[in-house]
Amino acid sequence: MAELSRRSEVAVATIKFYLREGLLPAGESTATNQAEYSEDHLRRLRLVRALIAHGKLSVASTRDVLVAVAEPLDRYQTLGVTHYALQAPAGKSAPPEGEPDEAAVETDRLIDGMGWHVRPESPLRETLAEGLRSLRSLHEIGTTYGAEELTPYAKLAAATARLDLDQLTGLEDRIDIAERALVLTVLLEPVLATLRRMAQEHEATLRYAEGLDEVDGNT
Amino acid sequence: MAELSRRSEVAVATIKFYLREGLLPAGESTATNQAEYSEDHLRRLRLVRALIAHGKLSVASTRDVLVAVAEPLDRYQTLGVTHYALQAPAGKSAPPEGEPDEAAVETDRLIDGMGWHVRPESPLRETLAEGLRSLRSLHEIGTTYGAEELTPYAKLAAATARLDLDQLTGLEDRIDIAERALVLTVLLEPVLATLRRMAQEHEATLRYAEGLDEVDGNT
Repeated sequence: MAELSRRSEVAVATIKFYLREGLLPAGESTATNQAEYSEDHLRRLRLVRALIAHGKLSVASTRDVLVAVAEPLDRYQTLGVTHYALQAPAGKSAPPEGEPDEAAVETDRLIDGMGWHVRPESPLRETLAEGLRSLRSLHEIGTTYGAEELTPYAKLAAATARLDLDQLTGLEDRIDIAERALVLTVLLEPVLATLRRMAQEHEATLRYAEGLDEVDGNT
Repeated sequence: MAELSRRSEVAVATIKFYLREGLLPAGESTATNQAEYSEDHLRRLRLVRALIAHGKLSVASTRDVLVAVAEPLDRYQTLGVTHYALQAPAGKSAPPEGEPDEAAVETDRLIDGMGWHVRPESPLRETLAEGLRSLRSLHEIGTTYGAEELTPYAKLAAATARLDLDQLTGLEDRIDIAERALVLTVLLEPVLATLRRMAQEHEATLRYAEGLDEVDGNT
């Protein structure tokens, strides 16, 4: 276990906790107080740590992913389980009871209009509706965002998702697929948000800056 | 003040706090314990509340934006001040001292390669470098993200930013511009992240789901 800790850079106490919680299978006992851990243990340990530390998954959700990785699921199923587990923190609240409100209706209209395969039970639907509600709460602002206003954005999101999925090409191992899903959903998100803000700065400069030549340093 | 509170849905105690902090100019005194607040007060108050509640700006940063809005700045300058104030929470840390590391070098390469106007002092540079460092910390994952891998994403971010900036067309009033900058930077961000995750679910279904006809409900 000391070697497993050294190679994974995860503290022994943390490894013991993961073992107790069933996130990591026990090593093969070789002698009293000695167990052998395989390369597979190391890779599972790194995945567990990444899901908890970067994905902010609960122990229970992490266990769901690890169970999926251990079962003979195909690529689509492994991806699906990991993807759904990672949505959980974003979808803070259950949908409001009763009739769907305007935000929920606009969410469905957008998905239908795009022809997207998003399951009825996907937590993303409520997350999007929540985002629309938050935009609507700023009622002093002239524009309302609904299916129509979001469709051009959705088309660019579709192109971005194609770049994302291209990165799964060639991955066959279920641990690799789960790791990559973590990178693509959680870790790339702030990077892409920053790229958009940079592009906003650039675009604002192009459109509105006077004396752009000076900005460029050309005279 | 009671009417201002009613119309803005901001508590009187909060309005008093904003007045004390200089975020809102005093109303015109009309009698003892009476002051008149104009339509402009109401709009400034809503902007202050939105910047603090949704933009998570500090009182000091909110004051910067309000000072900018009150001065005869042009559209580009107003946008710039608001945009920079809103970056602050994301850029958590100062750049590491000494030589720029690989993440900082890749950030500069990406910006240069895109031909983007992003000022040398823009906090977005360090925010992007931080994101790249966080991706690199998952060293078990095969891909490293650098300028080359991010360029296709940056091109889609540029298209997204053009959609964003189109929404400023026709806005001349500085309070309107600052409000819209808040919407475009902060409030749309989770909505766009959700659209990307939905598009990932769709794209994964297209590429990997067997029996897609069943998913569709067509037989």
